[in-house]
Amino acid sequence: MKLYETLAAGIAGQIAQGVIREGEKIPSVRQTSQHHNLSVSTVIRAFLLLESQGLIESRPQSGYFVRRRPAAHATTIAPAAPADMARGDNLDTSEFVLTTLRSINQGSVPLGSPYPDPAMFPWAKLNQYANSLARRVAQMGITADLPPGNPELIRQIARRHLENGLPVDANEIIVTTGATEALNLCLQAVAAPGATIAVESPTYYALLQAIERMNMRVLEIATDPVEGIQLDALERAIVEQGVAACIVMPNFQNPLGFQMSDERKRAMVEMLTRHEVPVIENDVYHELYYGDVHPTSLKNYDTRGLVLHCNSFSKTLSPANRIGWALPGRYKAQVEKLKFLNTLNTPALPQLAIAEYLKNDGYDYHLRKVRKAYTQQASIMASAVRRFFPAGTGVSTPAGGYLLWVTLPPEVRALELYARAQERGISVGAGNIFATGDAFQHCIRLNYSYPWTAEVEGAVRTLGLLAGELANCTPRKEANL
Amino acid sequence: MKLYETLAAGIAGQIAQGVIREGEKIPSVRQTSQHHNLSVSTVIRAFLLLESQGLIESRPQSGYFVRRRPAAHATTIAPAAPADMARGDNLDTSEFVLTTLRSINQGSVPLGSPYPDPAMFPWAKLNQYANSLARRVAQMGITADLPPGNPELIRQIARRHLENGLPVDANEIIVTTGATEALNLCLQAVAAPGATIAVESPTYYALLQAIERMNMRVLEIATDPVEGIQLDALERAIVEQGVAACIVMPNFQNPLGFQMSDERKRAMVEMLTRHEVPVIENDVYHELYYGDVHPTSLKNYDTRGLVLHCNSFSKTLSPANRIGWALPGRYKAQVEKLKFLNTLNTPALPQLAIAEYLKNDGYDYHLRKVRKAYTQQASIMASAVRRFFPAGTGVSTPAGGYLLWVTLPPEVRALELYARAQERGISVGAGNIFATGDAFQHCIRLNYSYPWTAEVEGAVRTLGLLAGELANCTPRKEANL
Repeated sequence: MKLYETLAAGIAGQIAQGVIREGEKIPSVRQTSQHHNLSVSTVIRAFLLLESQGLIESRPQSGYFVRRRPAAHATTIAPAAPADMARGDNLDTSEFVLTTLRSINQGSVPLGSPYPDPAMFPWAKLNQYANSLARRVAQMGITADLPPGNPELIRQIARRHLENGLPVDANEIIVTTGATEALNLCLQAVAAPGATIAVESPTYYALLQAIERMNMRVLEIATDPVEGIQLDALERAIVEQGVAACIVMPNFQNPLGFQMSDERKRAMVEMLTRHEVPVIENDVYHELYYGDVHPTSLKNYDTRGLVLHCNSFSKTLSPANRIGWALPGRYKAQVEKLKFLNTLNTPALPQLAIAEYLKNDGYDYHLRKVRKAYTQQASIMASAVRRFFPAGTGVSTPAGGYLLWVTLPPEVRALELYARAQERGISVGAGNIFATGDAFQHCIRLNYSYPWTAEVEGAVRTLGLLAGELANCTPRKEANL
Repeated sequence: MKLYETLAAGIAGQIAQGVIREGEKIPSVRQTSQHHNLSVSTVIRAFLLLESQGLIESRPQSGYFVRRRPAAHATTIAPAAPADMARGDNLDTSEFVLTTLRSINQGSVPLGSPYPDPAMFPWAKLNQYANSLARRVAQMGITADLPPGNPELIRQIARRHLENGLPVDANEIIVTTGATEALNLCLQAVAAPGATIAVESPTYYALLQAIERMNMRVLEIATDPVEGIQLDALERAIVEQGVAACIVMPNFQNPLGFQMSDERKRAMVEMLTRHEVPVIENDVYHELYYGDVHPTSLKNYDTRGLVLHCNSFSKTLSPANRIGWALPGRYKAQVEKLKFLNTLNTPALPQLAIAEYLKNDGYDYHLRKVRKAYTQQASIMASAVRRFFPAGTGVSTPAGGYLLWVTLPPEVRALELYARAQERGISVGAGNIFATGDAFQHCIRLNYSYPWTAEVEGAVRTLGLLAGELANCTPRKEANL
């Protein structure tokens, strides 16, 4: 654990024990720095961490205070009917998500995009393979690509997993129309309508929508921006409330960006296995790590077939192909059947083109380039946010992927910021969509997969100014801390 | 109405009124021919029609008898759990369907295939467009293809509908991953778990599976092989049992091949509108008509947005593209949202390639060629079945598409025939998969989209001999009638 994490954990402990109560001021940055003999920047990092955990909040000109928490960590909500998915702020989330996505193409600076910069994809090679395949295998691709999917692509996926340290049985792989379909099918395979599904909070919005759509119940479990889902809270929920399944994103979680440690991954799988609770693992960013080592997956620790691993080429080889896959463990037969019922088969040419791409070299070279770019851009974007945004703003420290989570001063409403930014041609991801309640309505998600240009920097500055106006305070000065 | 239809209707009326009772012999072909002053072949056609309607059955060496009907026309079954879709003969239908489909590629004569002969698709042109598009629009196709779908493809679909006599609002069109996804989404948009869905009997098996998967109830409505779904029975079911929605295939129904008349289509929509029951229209064969005129759709008669029209290019431009669409009427918003949740977007390149294909000429020329081939092959296949199959066999008279429905003597079990045919490298579609009960376990579906070769003829002859063995009778002789 790093120094700032140790400090943050200590302060969190004091808050948990009631040493500092809700609404009370915590010691200032300067006091804390002197008291613990730590640098000011370490203390600031600890405070930002605590803030992103929702434990403290900054008040303009006053310092940091213990936040009044709206409810317990884990909250249950009854699912809304599919036609009426209103949430906090009367937001129709899926409609709002679609609006956000559509805004991306309309000449805006796409900070709200969930997609990587399309310029990063190896279009030319993929298209070249598609073309040469189209000539060669003209009349194939009808029954050959029935579930579980094209055999050559399945072989290549198994090989890639092996290279990444996850030996899998090729017979377990089911090709899907993107990870979205894989997640939907796995969810339906493990749980029935009315069942309770535990998710991280905040979580990827599409999971909340999938759970609602299937008339299941969402149970949001407190999730630490560094450690990941809180296993104690999860186990308590399993014991006390009954949980049919759990969906998590252990690597470079959307939106928080953390990577769960190997120990926590192992502990999670062991705990869930003890309770016989299946877990759906969304691992779509696994290739986009910033360190030297490919991260492990929950699937690495699975001994009983209870991990349903979902993955995709959409973040590395373009979402336009819509090629994902599932490793559904003991639920393989059900998922394969559901795939067949849901969309019959997966388009042939994209499957074949990706198989060909994987077979020939180039994927690793491509990924190294992408990872290098994202690593650099993550730190540029984070420091720009620190520079331009008002006091009381916290930023995540992503371990991979291309998404930054920004917690604004609590008085800033992300939806208002979203609207004002839209008027200026800037899209942002409003925090509201990542939970069923109001917990993240002062948060935004920023995409840093695009090269850092004057235009992007200008957009981040504009966002910071808008957030400052909404926070009704001056831009951050060191003295404010 | 043609002569044989009038005769069949008269005999059906006598049966309905109890003039001839269950198990009783009906007058012979010769007697009927003399009595009505009709040709022998007209009488045979009428008997075959009555047989395919399940009203009479042939007994070797004895003639035709009124069939003992297992139950009322409309039967309700409780949905099985998705993991346990056992039916008559303990058949896991979706597993069996998958097995059937997979067997097609394994060197067998694909009489059991639901797909058209891949050689009929314009692969070269589609691939050429895909290739030139891939060069031109390299980095597009991510947000541009979000639901409702690629704008250019949507424009082309609207234009095609207009050319075919169905003016539609382009804003109503939602592109999907094949018609399979369109049908699933429309079903979920109009009905909740537990709701009752009326279907034709026999019906396209994927619909039964979709209904089961969503924990809805199947209500099978008697369906005439010439007229289509029986509107009286359907209305009775709506009034007496409550029906949330109805799914039908009014043009070239799979498996029966009939085309509902314009009057019956109009009457159906009016009746359903009166009861405010939405109807999902599966119209994937609409371009494959045998006459001179493109058939109307239920959508042509819809005044209240209650028809959800589902369609696809899978039968005309290859299923490998997986491009379908829905015109969901007043349910547009719900279907678009569900599409977004189910698979996010539809693959870009296939959408663009098909749009390009439709924009340039060639589709009509291609379809004329296909229709001519299917029209000829339909009659060749039907007469081969008449020639090679045992007495008591009936065949449908498809008005379009590429599927023939064959009713075998009642003692022949289609599953047994399926198994024996498999051993000889021939696939057939067993009737069991087209209904929840046993009503069609003596029926098979044959695909005649492939050119008529000695191999295909040999396969049909072999099937006929196998059916004859199972019927424990000699091959048909005119005297048997």
